[in-house]
Amino acid sequence: MKRETTESEYTAAVVGGTGFTGGELLRLLYQHPNFDVVQATSRSKERKTVGHVHPNLREMDLRFTSPEDLESVDVLFAATPHGVSMEHIDAFQDAADTVVDLSADFRLNTEAQYDEWYDGHVCPEYLEQAEYALPEINRENLAGADLIASGGCNATATILGLKPLFDADVLSGDEQVVVDVKVGSSEGGAGGGDASSHPERSGIVRPYAPTGHRHEAEIEQFLGVSVSFTVHAVDMVRGASATCHVFPESPVSKGDLWKAYRGTYADEPFVRTVAGGGGVYRYPEPKSVAGTNMAEVGFELDPSNRRVVVFSAIDNMMKGSAGQAVHAANVALGVEETAGLEFTGLHPVGAP
Amino acid sequence: MKRETTESEYTAAVVGGTGFTGGELLRLLYQHPNFDVVQATSRSKERKTVGHVHPNLREMDLRFTSPEDLESVDVLFAATPHGVSMEHIDAFQDAADTVVDLSADFRLNTEAQYDEWYDGHVCPEYLEQAEYALPEINRENLAGADLIASGGCNATATILGLKPLFDADVLSGDEQVVVDVKVGSSEGGAGGGDASSHPERSGIVRPYAPTGHRHEAEIEQFLGVSVSFTVHAVDMVRGASATCHVFPESPVSKGDLWKAYRGTYADEPFVRTVAGGGGVYRYPEPKSVAGTNMAEVGFELDPSNRRVVVFSAIDNMMKGSAGQAVHAANVALGVEETAGLEFTGLHPVGAP
Amino acid sequence: MKRETTESEYTAAVVGGTGFTGGELLRLLYQHPNFDVVQATSRSKERKTVGHVHPNLREMDLRFTSPEDLESVDVLFAATPHGVSMEHIDAFQDAADTVVDLSADFRLNTEAQYDEWYDGHVCPEYLEQAEYALPEINRENLAGADLIASGGCNATATILGLKPLFDADVLSGDEQVVVDVKVGSSEGGAGGGDASSHPERSGIVRPYAPTGHRHEAEIEQFLGVSVSFTVHAVDMVRGASATCHVFPESPVSKGDLWKAYRGTYADEPFVRTVAGGGGVYRYPEPKSVAGTNMAEVGFELDPSNRRVVVFSAIDNMMKGSAGQAVHAANVALGVEETAGLEFTGLHPVGAP
Amino acid sequence: MKRETTESEYTAAVVGGTGFTGGELLRLLYQHPNFDVVQATSRSKERKTVGHVHPNLREMDLRFTSPEDLESVDVLFAATPHGVSMEHIDAFQDAADTVVDLSADFRLNTEAQYDEWYDGHVCPEYLEQAEYALPEINRENLAGADLIASGGCNATATILGLKPLFDADVLSGDEQVVVDVKVGSSEGGAGGGDASSHPERSGIVRPYAPTGHRHEAEIEQFLGVSVSFTVHAVDMVRGASATCHVFPESPVSKGDLWKAYRGTYADEPFVRTVAGGGGVYRYPEPKSVAGTNMAEVGFELDPSNRRVVVFSAIDNMMKGSAGQAVHAANVALGVEETAGLEFTGLHPVGAP
Repeated sequence: MKRETTESEYTAAVVGGTGFTGGELLRLLYQHPNFDVVQATSRSKERKTVGHVHPNLREMDLRFTSPEDLESVDVLFAATPHGVSMEHIDAFQDAADTVVDLSADFRLNTEAQYDEWYDGHVCPEYLEQAEYALPEINRENLAGADLIASGGCNATATILGLKPLFDADVLSGDEQVVVDVKVGSSEGGAGGGDASSHPERSGIVRPYAPTGHRHEAEIEQFLGVSVSFTVHAVDMVRGASATCHVFPESPVSKGDLWKAYRGTYADEPFVRTVAGGGGVYRYPEPKSVAGTNMAEVGFELDPSNRRVVVFSAIDNMMKGSAGQAVHAANVALGVEETAGLEFTGLHPVGAP
Repeated sequence: MKRETTESEYTAAVVGGTGFTGGELLRLLYQHPNFDVVQATSRSKERKTVGHVHPNLREMDLRFTSPEDLESVDVLFAATPHGVSMEHIDAFQDAADTVVDLSADFRLNTEAQYDEWYDGHVCPEYLEQAEYALPEINRENLAGADLIASGGCNATATILGLKPLFDADVLSGDEQVVVDVKVGSSEGGAGGGDASSHPERSGIVRPYAPTGHRHEAEIEQFLGVSVSFTVHAVDMVRGASATCHVFPESPVSKGDLWKAYRGTYADEPFVRTVAGGGGVYRYPEPKSVAGTNMAEVGFELDPSNRRVVVFSAIDNMMKGSAGQAVHAANVALGVEETAGLEFTGLHPVGAP
Repeated sequence: MKRETTESEYTAAVVGGTGFTGGELLRLLYQHPNFDVVQATSRSKERKTVGHVHPNLREMDLRFTSPEDLESVDVLFAATPHGVSMEHIDAFQDAADTVVDLSADFRLNTEAQYDEWYDGHVCPEYLEQAEYALPEINRENLAGADLIASGGCNATATILGLKPLFDADVLSGDEQVVVDVKVGSSEGGAGGGDASSHPERSGIVRPYAPTGHRHEAEIEQFLGVSVSFTVHAVDMVRGASATCHVFPESPVSKGDLWKAYRGTYADEPFVRTVAGGGGVYRYPEPKSVAGTNMAEVGFELDPSNRRVVVFSAIDNMMKGSAGQAVHAANVALGVEETAGLEFTGLHPVGAP
Repeated sequence: MKRETTESEYTAAVVGGTGFTGGELLRLLYQHPNFDVVQATSRSKERKTVGHVHPNLREMDLRFTSPEDLESVDVLFAATPHGVSMEHIDAFQDAADTVVDLSADFRLNTEAQYDEWYDGHVCPEYLEQAEYALPEINRENLAGADLIASGGCNATATILGLKPLFDADVLSGDEQVVVDVKVGSSEGGAGGGDASSHPERSGIVRPYAPTGHRHEAEIEQFLGVSVSFTVHAVDMVRGASATCHVFPESPVSKGDLWKAYRGTYADEPFVRTVAGGGGVYRYPEPKSVAGTNMAEVGFELDPSNRRVVVFSAIDNMMKGSAGQAVHAANVALGVEETAGLEFTGLHPVGAP
């Protein structure tokens, strides 16, 4: 249901509204107290209602329009495939004071970095000015930002999991860091080929990016560490879970770790530490945060060696994408940080 | 996140807060603008936090207390197994002005009906005074009600699906009505035996109530029709989907059906009609309403005979239970009907 | 692993070997003691190994060849989309003494029937001579047959479930028969569009053929009854489950029903009756027969009216397709009926 | 279906026949050409048929008997919880020439090792004489063995994945070895508490053994390396997938790795190497081997550092338990190694 907006309202547009991330943005903005969605674009579904594609939004009174005719808005969210935003960045900036891009086009700081992981950038001059969306590591630069680059989902999970260890000098960046990620099928986006058809994709533990995953670049950029990164697809739709195996030079205790995580995240509204305790849910799990903008982080010590195992779980479409983008927009425009992102998630929930 | 409550605030308690329905009530009330949860009881988890059991509610600052010491509240929700509320109804009514019971104890109007489907009632004098929660069929009696009986999930789905056909005299109650229901594992509640363990429960199409399901009684009470009712368990956690096969005496057209459904539900905030059209989601589906208080209803005509196939989909824990209870409480206490129930659901979502 | 073949060996070819049904045929024939697969065709995967597409058959030493160059074999299985076999039936018959077609092209007996449910047949003269594969209803005509039409999966489940009631004159064909079917995603075949992508297809109860399903024609042809037929897609890959709601003119007892089912199936190696008893698995379930050629059938009486609920569960790719085809070929060529079809299935198994 | 046994037949008993592993043993032995199951014991289901518990074995003509009255057999399989076999080992050995124990009771060689990971052993004198079942690392000692200890599922996956690297001196045992395992719900066995109920267990990525998993002991015993081991539960029923992140001292090429894996497994009937190539299934996946005794192993090189990522996938109930046990019994008794274990698995298959 549409929640009533307040007087401090901003107009918003979503470019690429039929994809999963675009739909998630529309959902968040539809119920956001400070934003009013005035446009959603789609090349393939022009003139169809938003609810035609996203059945949860059947009540939303909006039809997709061509991406050629952008309306003038306060904030434009671009939920297009990698490479599209860089082609249209001028049009986006003409249309909106604030542009939040959810692709990988503006996440890296330099052209050299970009070229190492992607193919040639068409407007590298924007790379330096774009602000990385993750407020937990870049809040101060987001206020008033013109161009915001929403982080990659797997990078987000990894960065949030490991950051306290760097903040607390448990890790320096020279250690071996193995990151073993498990992700849901929504990471593949709408569409997808044979490998994402239900019969082939159900029940899998599939190494889909054994090595060479591009999100390594973001992790290195923000944590200063080169990670050994492997991504598996598992049977869920939403969710990214990063298990980081790290080996600090000096021994650490559980108390040290609790102190580190509390130190980094005590005041963060969207990160909570879950590490042990009783019950069924003792460590971070994607199910626990499905549909929400919350990240769960946690850890365990290996009694047989110096290993610290760090767990991090997010909803890849929320904290890993659309939720992070709205969070960053909230910061950029100066509205309540948590506005529109209060949903607590469900329990129980199946394979969210 | 806790949403700020307004001045028109009521205190609320949840008896039986560790079960799935109790957790769902706590979630809804935690974010409800007009209610403030002051107590959640549990015999087995006394002194544990709500978040210990319900990981989505880790931020909720509340611990389970013994059900023996009920606080005085404006509204008490009882989410206890069948037979418990009738034993404690006096204590509940002492503690609260309004009692909303989510069990089957007060759904039927007469002792004779109750005895036909359940075992002896200990306080049959309450049966007549209790109001059935479903606002779509009983709104006028819910305002100011003292004792509200929240409907059964499968009965709710069936009643909402068929009601327009009775309202529009497409059906009279003498026809053959076959109702084939598919439900998720949360219907079995927390706990559950071998049959609900993950290895045995995954991927099933299991006839778990081939005949004799007790919700037939509610359907007959409110629609005046005796249904042929069969329930299958399928692989989802949340959701109830009722497919009703009916054979009207006189031929009907799609136009007649659209008119009937619009007539009954045009002004209902929590029922929408979905019948055909293009795209992936052309009929009611539990996925489309998972996590929400929305019911989807729809229909199709069989070209080869007079059959009308009616589809109805709800989240059994929301519209089929906790959401319906909060909706009814909203009506009973005179706050905005949709308050606390605005969540639109997610797309895509796995097996919710 | 390849099982050693015996002296009574027949050569076999599979046309359309990359699809799900083609792969299932290759699996069965690879381990069949009496057949030796000498060719599998594929237009899109020519020269790729069978194991490239079907990971369970990586050890099979066979590469796909063009369908233009058919080898001469004893038996050819055509696992091509509807409409392809009728175009190539002469080539198939030139290449093989026995042709088993798994599409709908030759299932119906007359051109009039075919035209009612499909588009114009190009060789209607074959319709009458083709033998329907289901040995349980057509065993005597399969021996030595030249052209065999393997039955539709949903029709097979329904026919097997209801047949004893007609054999025992519990039903005459004039009664109302409602058939509510639940099927897995493999029914959609390899490929499939948006609706079968994992994010959209997971966790669903989706009315995908509310009315007008073509398998009604086969059911009417063999049982002489017009059924009210509705098909839902649910979250499993393999499996078809038919729940038939029937209303006999005269009352029947459980004893009558047991007698009817035993009468029809006492000597059938691939049908078992499951109706009540204790434990977790008390009625037919697709999980119980996944991967096997077994059909489970069962029933329950409605105490409140004359309804008999009949349950029937098969693996749509086995008893509903490739297994049925091999069973029929066994009968046609005079080898042991159960040869190559002895697999018992697994317990537990997830969403098979 | 029962496959005909040959003249070289051995009698077999399964102690603990109601559990998942016991059921899997019964399934394998029922269709084994050289074994004849004469007894299955169960304390809780005495006198019930095997098919009452295991629906895939409804045709098996056998009822559970008390474990107190063991028949004299050629081979006894003990599928009892950890700690039971050591209590009854004398009775088992009295009853059978060959005892195959599927618990952890006899896997470790010394009492010191046992005490480090489990609680006090009651008959440590058997530890040294018991032979570890995995034929790939202990074939020569299994022939004629009296007491065989079937390996742990996660240890089996890990050992098979890493062994070629030790055989080929790519690893020496001094390197950091991180093993990140994903397992299905059948690892928890029949029964299971809240955490394994369908609503709580569906769709999870749950760190259930973050550190300190007992299978580390077996891995260290056979590979001579101490591993950093973490186990996650994911949404499948059958399957264990081990991803091993290793860092050889000296650089290796893909050619080196192929040579190593071929060197170790060229003649092994139940291990195949899958590493790259096209198509959907490019690395080991549990789905590809579900229901079979096959292990898939494979690898990938990290271009950015010296990391080798090793993947290993098995069906935990087959290669990781019952299949391994039957394989070892085949070797011990001198029948064809692959007898009774030829099933190829299914494609497609859901969450097996």
